[in-house]
Amino acid sequence: MSRNLKFVLDSRPADKVSPQNFRLVEEPIPTPGPGQIVVRHHYLSLDPYMRGRISDAKSYAAPQPLGETMVGGTVGEIVASENARFKPGDFVVGMGGWQLYGLSDGRGVNVVDAKTVPLQAYLGPLGMPGVTAWWGLNKIIAPKAGETVLVTAATGAVGSVVGQLAKLAGAQAIGVAGGPEKCIYATETLGYDACVDHKSARFGEELKAAAGQGIDGVFENVGGELFLESLKRLNDFARIAVCGLIASYEGKPTALPNMAIFLVRRIKIEGFIVADHLPAWPQAVSELAGHVAAGRLRWRETVRQGLESAPQALVDLLHGGNFGKMLVKLV
Amino acid sequence: MSRNLKFVLDSRPADKVSPQNFRLVEEPIPTPGPGQIVVRHHYLSLDPYMRGRISDAKSYAAPQPLGETMVGGTVGEIVASENARFKPGDFVVGMGGWQLYGLSDGRGVNVVDAKTVPLQAYLGPLGMPGVTAWWGLNKIIAPKAGETVLVTAATGAVGSVVGQLAKLAGAQAIGVAGGPEKCIYATETLGYDACVDHKSARFGEELKAAAGQGIDGVFENVGGELFLESLKRLNDFARIAVCGLIASYEGKPTALPNMAIFLVRRIKIEGFIVADHLPAWPQAVSELAGHVAAGRLRWRETVRQGLESAPQALVDLLHGGNFGKMLVKLV
Repeated sequence: MSRNLKFVLDSRPADKVSPQNFRLVEEPIPTPGPGQIVVRHHYLSLDPYMRGRISDAKSYAAPQPLGETMVGGTVGEIVASENARFKPGDFVVGMGGWQLYGLSDGRGVNVVDAKTVPLQAYLGPLGMPGVTAWWGLNKIIAPKAGETVLVTAATGAVGSVVGQLAKLAGAQAIGVAGGPEKCIYATETLGYDACVDHKSARFGEELKAAAGQGIDGVFENVGGELFLESLKRLNDFARIAVCGLIASYEGKPTALPNMAIFLVRRIKIEGFIVADHLPAWPQAVSELAGHVAAGRLRWRETVRQGLESAPQALVDLLHGGNFGKMLVKLV
Repeated sequence: MSRNLKFVLDSRPADKVSPQNFRLVEEPIPTPGPGQIVVRHHYLSLDPYMRGRISDAKSYAAPQPLGETMVGGTVGEIVASENARFKPGDFVVGMGGWQLYGLSDGRGVNVVDAKTVPLQAYLGPLGMPGVTAWWGLNKIIAPKAGETVLVTAATGAVGSVVGQLAKLAGAQAIGVAGGPEKCIYATETLGYDACVDHKSARFGEELKAAAGQGIDGVFENVGGELFLESLKRLNDFARIAVCGLIASYEGKPTALPNMAIFLVRRIKIEGFIVADHLPAWPQAVSELAGHVAAGRLRWRETVRQGLESAPQALVDLLHGGNFGKMLVKLV
């Protein structure tokens, strides 16, 4: 491969995103100018937030510009450096985008240790998804030992970390996931006390049975109709961390039909974006790395092969077609 | 008056509460047994929470039982005591109920200083409404200097304290109240920077104009359709303290049509009941009393005369017919 390949956003979808919204562009591998680096990407991370960027609706971040390289987290190896912070052979994590080679001035790029953990873990439990899980659980839900925490998208990149951290905090963890295979993985490998299949026609009853003592914390990644079922099971003083509403990104908005529950049960609900909390990252990553090193934190990946697979992989991610962290392997 | 008069709840309304739901009962003035006191009530407090108690829907407190004396806060004077904590002539605040004389064992009854402030202030700025304002503003909204706080029912018993405390904290305070008279009082006497009349057909535009820098905190006493207008004006990281939803107590539920705002703007919303926070009362009352003594806290009362006026006064309160704290004078 002597050329760079990249995907740019070619059009915005009217309804659901499709591979046709992206355009593959070939260009020369960049050469670093003064202060710049070139990274050969090993993995590209696909994450639900990308759906928001593809839209031009007002949100917390500016929309992805048309005709420019799609935004995305990457891990890779420095292949050329005119920046004293980096040398060829260093492994780094950054926001390199949907491309084989990334050129940057090094801002937001960090050297990582790829000897003790797989490089792509810095896109998962030791990266943005892991820190997201850590912040929402510890800073918003703050579970006490013996409390019950519900985690939707329980086996996903974020949810799988939330469930395991909740257990380490002495809480009960109940997962919600799509299909029996994910639910078995949730309880047998991730250590959830129970997992409810959201594809079940009896979801409401099954959630009620699983959450016999009621729910004290909800880590919400999904939203939609099922979220209303979880509200019925809340205990007084429950805390809801709203991390994502993936069911609504290409579907109906998630509505709350009656705010009286906030008063009757004294509920707190708080939305958050991990990028707002950069000062907390070192502590979070340090704790997460400790758990990984001690074998207390497990995770799983869905790895698609080759940059060309990225558009369809994102579409699949948005509809639950991943099992754990969705990655595209580029080398 | 040599007999006690009291109102009991006679029936639960199917829809809106009416005076016919209450029944007046005459009985002998009670005589205290060992450890008991008898209080001659001077004022009865009428508060929105009573609407919830009259219903038998599940809530944070048990419903008001049929045939028993209606619950309510009272201030009065000890007229007979077999309890060492109280002596005749002491002025006290407690939950004496809708009656002229209250018999109790003294639990939840506290002696107050009625020399420096009017006795009924212990049902207003130095009582439950004041502490409610203090908790929601300081513990949930926690305004920083220069931020903007929106207060609905801005001239009511709770809202009037919230607005003034927000100003003392260096924030901008914007009120929402019903009608020009209340709005003028809000800005000219209570010190709100602006007040928007919720009866105006142009409410949304007027709120937008008043909240030119956006809203960082909402102290919500009302709910309903107008609440959705305030959501449109929220800044990132806004905090919403849900204290009451009086517009929904006898009307349609207050719904949130789209939870995406929690994510896009990283909003926190939290419901609270001041009775959950008894340990904070001494600090709150001490701070509020300091403001009252220094003339920094103003309030206003709607006083109805005689116990017989209580049922209609509650109905009026639920529909905005009060101007400031709703009280019934009993002596």
